[in-house]
Amino acid sequence: MLPPISQNIQVNFKYNIIFTEGLFKADNSLLLNTLNPSSGSCETKILCVVDNGLLDANPGLFKEINQYFDGQPSLQCVQPPLVVPGGEKVKNHTQYVEAIQELIHRHKIDRHSYILAIGGGAVIDMVGYAAAVSHRGVRLIRIPTTVLSQNDSAVGVKNGINAYGKKNFLGTFAPPYAVLIDFDFLTTLNDRDWISGTSEAVKVALLKDPDFFHFLEDHSGRLQGRDMPSMQKLIYRCAELHLDHIANSGDPFEAGTSRPLDFGHWAAHKIEQLSNYKIRHGEAVAVGLALDVTYAYYSNILSKNDWIRILELLRQLGFKLFVPELTINLDEPGKHPSILEGLNEFREHLGGQLTIMLIKGIGESFETHTMDEKRILKSIKALREYELSTTVNR
Amino acid sequence: MLPPISQNIQVNFKYNIIFTEGLFKADNSLLLNTLNPSSGSCETKILCVVDNGLLDANPGLFKEINQYFDGQPSLQCVQPPLVVPGGEKVKNHTQYVEAIQELIHRHKIDRHSYILAIGGGAVIDMVGYAAAVSHRGVRLIRIPTTVLSQNDSAVGVKNGINAYGKKNFLGTFAPPYAVLIDFDFLTTLNDRDWISGTSEAVKVALLKDPDFFHFLEDHSGRLQGRDMPSMQKLIYRCAELHLDHIANSGDPFEAGTSRPLDFGHWAAHKIEQLSNYKIRHGEAVAVGLALDVTYAYYSNILSKNDWIRILELLRQLGFKLFVPELTINLDEPGKHPSILEGLNEFREHLGGQLTIMLIKGIGESFETHTMDEKRILKSIKALREYELSTTVNR
Repeated sequence: MLPPISQNIQVNFKYNIIFTEGLFKADNSLLLNTLNPSSGSCETKILCVVDNGLLDANPGLFKEINQYFDGQPSLQCVQPPLVVPGGEKVKNHTQYVEAIQELIHRHKIDRHSYILAIGGGAVIDMVGYAAAVSHRGVRLIRIPTTVLSQNDSAVGVKNGINAYGKKNFLGTFAPPYAVLIDFDFLTTLNDRDWISGTSEAVKVALLKDPDFFHFLEDHSGRLQGRDMPSMQKLIYRCAELHLDHIANSGDPFEAGTSRPLDFGHWAAHKIEQLSNYKIRHGEAVAVGLALDVTYAYYSNILSKNDWIRILELLRQLGFKLFVPELTINLDEPGKHPSILEGLNEFREHLGGQLTIMLIKGIGESFETHTMDEKRILKSIKALREYELSTTVNR
Repeated sequence: MLPPISQNIQVNFKYNIIFTEGLFKADNSLLLNTLNPSSGSCETKILCVVDNGLLDANPGLFKEINQYFDGQPSLQCVQPPLVVPGGEKVKNHTQYVEAIQELIHRHKIDRHSYILAIGGGAVIDMVGYAAAVSHRGVRLIRIPTTVLSQNDSAVGVKNGINAYGKKNFLGTFAPPYAVLIDFDFLTTLNDRDWISGTSEAVKVALLKDPDFFHFLEDHSGRLQGRDMPSMQKLIYRCAELHLDHIANSGDPFEAGTSRPLDFGHWAAHKIEQLSNYKIRHGEAVAVGLALDVTYAYYSNILSKNDWIRILELLRQLGFKLFVPELTINLDEPGKHPSILEGLNEFREHLGGQLTIMLIKGIGESFETHTMDEKRILKSIKALREYELSTTVNR
């Protein structure tokens, strides 16, 4: 028989994450420079999709975007921005993806045109999926407008929508063309959204960067008090660590069974679900981190000093470390739904073998393949007690 | 303002193209070795999707596949093979993609499970798309069963379905986990399908390999006479050249405006469409190649000797070089639909700049950015005359 042929393909993806203020002001040239319109006879086609939640908080933005493109004759905005709902609900139906694809078809948007996704992480995930599977990938410019999307979801390589009740069931790995981070959008966030995105920064600091953890400890008060320079530094360093991990972990498209950035996430995903998504992703991550570091402490892996420092930082940033979702149906073993199912779902998602990231110190991560259920229950109990004690003292 | 962060991601994709006969016979270990079931407690989950056209020609195959998996306790085939229609029609609706995704959900198929796509190029394109966007990519084993899919479409990195009347409007670049080529499937092809896939071999020979062109000239009679060793060599070399191009062209996911493997395809795509897909892709490619080499000859770029050799080879393999679709609406300039629209559609698809691959000799390709319409019309006329003269002489 003829010998096998081994195929070996190297694909190089490059994109810039660029920081700015007032992206759609007439005198800001960043967007024009990024889109780099061709000097030929054809205009560069652009389709904008905007998060309705963002427009509610920034009533002038819709007009500002239209005026920006009116002032750029080399850029052809094919129609006024498409407005879609913000938050997880935009990912729960295919209708928004299909609406974008219909516009891609109708306006003859091609692989060298641009789609601008302007909004929070859910909108960017959804628009990214629509763009990635049209013509095998229309260029996507992500313009994240929340703390969580600026420091985490919008700088990475994933997109997706939910289907069959499963989070991100449909999606691809597809790096963006560029990510433009406009800090001005943060000023209109409510306090809850301002804070909730900071738990991902605590996560990467714990995994990778003790100095960044110290920074967060030193600035927790200012961060909670909406100090913009502190938040900019948090977003910048968090994005930098996230990007470095994707580029240098050796598994950017997650072919293996390990997902190191999912530290604290087995519980977080389940908490979000058990709360019917009333608990924000960032809030659930804070609880998930608290749970896993408590587990590491009770496993005699993490020192008491580090454990307390971590809980304290999360608390000082403004997070609750205990939520009732942690104890649903825990009284009877095997009863469901319960937080413990999160472990099984995590195992299943990774192809049968459980791999959980834990830490043995700040900045020192390691993988484990078993989690003891009794010790998880003990950790949940400890978090309830910790939360009660700190609430009384507040 | 904070400095931009440059992200640079290298992704490495590896897969093998393995040749065999009797893939689903009990004593053939290739599939088992490829799926490499984990030694742990969990079975390796598999979902098979089979082309109905293939089952029509191989009535025993359905049972054979079931028996194969019954004999492999470490492989868990989650249900009997899903049967889908063969040919372009399976790509014209989302229902088949959705049926596969519903099974992925129902059987808890994860990113470490396998989907086997068994059939012609259209079925493999459709199944590949369904797999690629579920859980951001379930492992896909392609088992192509036609000449065209074995030598061309199923060895590459694309998938897709049609939407809004546009070919492959929805799709991704997603390398397979492995490609298993079973030559036994070719014996049940009808003569038309046996021959039509060989035009892609002529194409890559013209672009890249004069020796392969000589091989095709020497073996054209045997190929037309269904000589299996000659066809195996054709498929092997064609796949090899195709794979080498993808790995070494510097643009495996087609980020640029050049698509060198689309030689002869601007006309071919339009011919298929004008014929309502009654003309096979391979047949249309043969006409498209004949048209473009005639154009190169009339442009004084290609020698008369090479031009005639190419037309002769295509004719000897059994292809028609002129079809009525070439002249639809050509009597009045600008009337449509006509073959000339194929150029505009090609330009549009590539982001506004036309890039057409031509040859100046056998194995010597070059790019051009303009095509003269009068010279195209002259070339079409020449092909009609050539076809008439050879038909009379036959």
